[in-house]
Amino acid sequence: MFVSEKEIEIRYAETDQMGVVYHANYVIWLELGRTQLIRDLGFSVIKFEADGYVSPVMNVNIRYKAAMRYGEKAIIRTWVKSQDRMRTVYAYEILHTDGTIAATATSEHIVVKKENFRPVAFNRVDEVWYNKYKEIAEIQD
Amino acid sequence: MFVSEKEIEIRYAETDQMGVVYHANYVIWLELGRTQLIRDLGFSVIKFEADGYVSPVMNVNIRYKAAMRYGEKAIIRTWVKSQDRMRTVYAYEILHTDGTIAATATSEHIVVKKENFRPVAFNRVDEVWYNKYKEIAEIQD
Amino acid sequence: MFVSEKEIEIRYAETDQMGVVYHANYVIWLELGRTQLIRDLGFSVIKFEADGYVSPVMNVNIRYKAAMRYGEKAIIRTWVKSQDRMRTVYAYEILHTDGTIAATATSEHIVVKKENFRPVAFNRVDEVWYNKYKEIAEIQD
Amino acid sequence: MFVSEKEIEIRYAETDQMGVVYHANYVIWLELGRTQLIRDLGFSVIKFEADGYVSPVMNVNIRYKAAMRYGEKAIIRTWVKSQDRMRTVYAYEILHTDGTIAATATSEHIVVKKENFRPVAFNRVDEVWYNKYKEIAEIQD
Repeated sequence: MFVSEKEIEIRYAETDQMGVVYHANYVIWLELGRTQLIRDLGFSVIKFEADGYVSPVMNVNIRYKAAMRYGEKAIIRTWVKSQDRMRTVYAYEILHTDGTIAATATSEHIVVKKENFRPVAFNRVDEVWYNKYKEIAEIQD
Repeated sequence: MFVSEKEIEIRYAETDQMGVVYHANYVIWLELGRTQLIRDLGFSVIKFEADGYVSPVMNVNIRYKAAMRYGEKAIIRTWVKSQDRMRTVYAYEILHTDGTIAATATSEHIVVKKENFRPVAFNRVDEVWYNKYKEIAEIQD
Repeated sequence: MFVSEKEIEIRYAETDQMGVVYHANYVIWLELGRTQLIRDLGFSVIKFEADGYVSPVMNVNIRYKAAMRYGEKAIIRTWVKSQDRMRTVYAYEILHTDGTIAATATSEHIVVKKENFRPVAFNRVDEVWYNKYKEIAEIQD
Repeated sequence: MFVSEKEIEIRYAETDQMGVVYHANYVIWLELGRTQLIRDLGFSVIKFEADGYVSPVMNVNIRYKAAMRYGEKAIIRTWVKSQDRMRTVYAYEILHTDGTIAATATSEHIVVKKENFRPVAFNRVDEVWYNKYKEIAEIQD
């Protein structure tokens, strides 16, 4: 299991009139966590899209534990929970800098051709990347 | 069971370079659906906050079925799935105008005091609103 | 001179911890005003992009007069300020529902080919649309 | 004159279907540039707000020169252009990592009391900060 860490400086624009980070913005942060994981493993979303593929989100499940505020930094811990031929599940913890959990989440992704959004098996698109994800996945089948 | 409908004109700003609506924006739309439901029932988020309460989101679970594109309108159908003393669960369908489902979702909410984020029982804050939610909830316990 | 009006329901997500609408969101609203003007005149951004063109923003100048708050509606009044072969300037007023001005703005746009972002003269792309803008422009040269 | 630099990793969420960064997001970046300048000088937006003040934006003028894309980093250069008793003007350059200019901008700010949005003179609120801005301002009157 490989866990990536990404630090995020909370933006004023991300707060709402409750005085805390607006909840939908955490979903954007999940993507920053994923991107960091991918980069840490030596792969590239840019190259993936240049090759004609995109990886749409099929599901997001996020549980909010403790509000985050402007002035804090958020740490996003991201790992691969499971990988099968068609579907990657990422898991996340969003932490305050003192280590307390602000939120936990999972997201499911598939790979599709950019031109027609037709699903393709991940191992057919990039076998090295796919095998890496199989290797580091938290849940091994 | 009472289902509210809210039509949303998709914004250019809501698209991403995949050419579809960026997935985190659906979470913002859920709030627009909730607000419409509340308004349709005769209640008011504004008054609720003026009285010193806010209703943070504890969980969002969203399943994406079919991408939405700029130029379309999205219909958000929102209803109360369940209500107990501390927790409201809303359910949602996001529809294309032809009725096909773009996404389904649920969200869980509690009521807290605005000043200290301490949870309070919804029925203590607004019994009429609470009773209405109990009455229209999809799941009756 | 033709002035279009677009009503916008302020979103909770658009507020910040100052308790007012975050200033960058007005820039998104300008686009909604522009889109409404284009639609009111019988043209279509969708068709324009399908034909292979996009219209990037070259300049935005926005002056904030009075804060807007959640619970209000914003009215965006949009018109064509000037049009020459290469450049459209739109002007805007953002109003509270009582008619007081919340903000005024202008934005400059060019037309480029979507594939390479090369500028093209608007009258070469859509002469009818271009002539309409010349006709309704506030500043006639 | 003191110029602050802030590097920004472009977010997928910040792109639009043109395949470039959506123009309103640059306005959010300006705030990140300002925040970095303030931090570099040893002051704090957090403390300022805790003391009961906020600094709303009165004007933004932004000129777009060259589109930015996902995968790039943006550099925000920020400095104080002018400071008088009531008004701070910041100037900005947004750069590609190769140094070419993506956008230039200015923004005007006042200081108001958080509770009633009444303007107050900056030098009355924080004389040290005010004097620092006078000292480093590009335009000396």
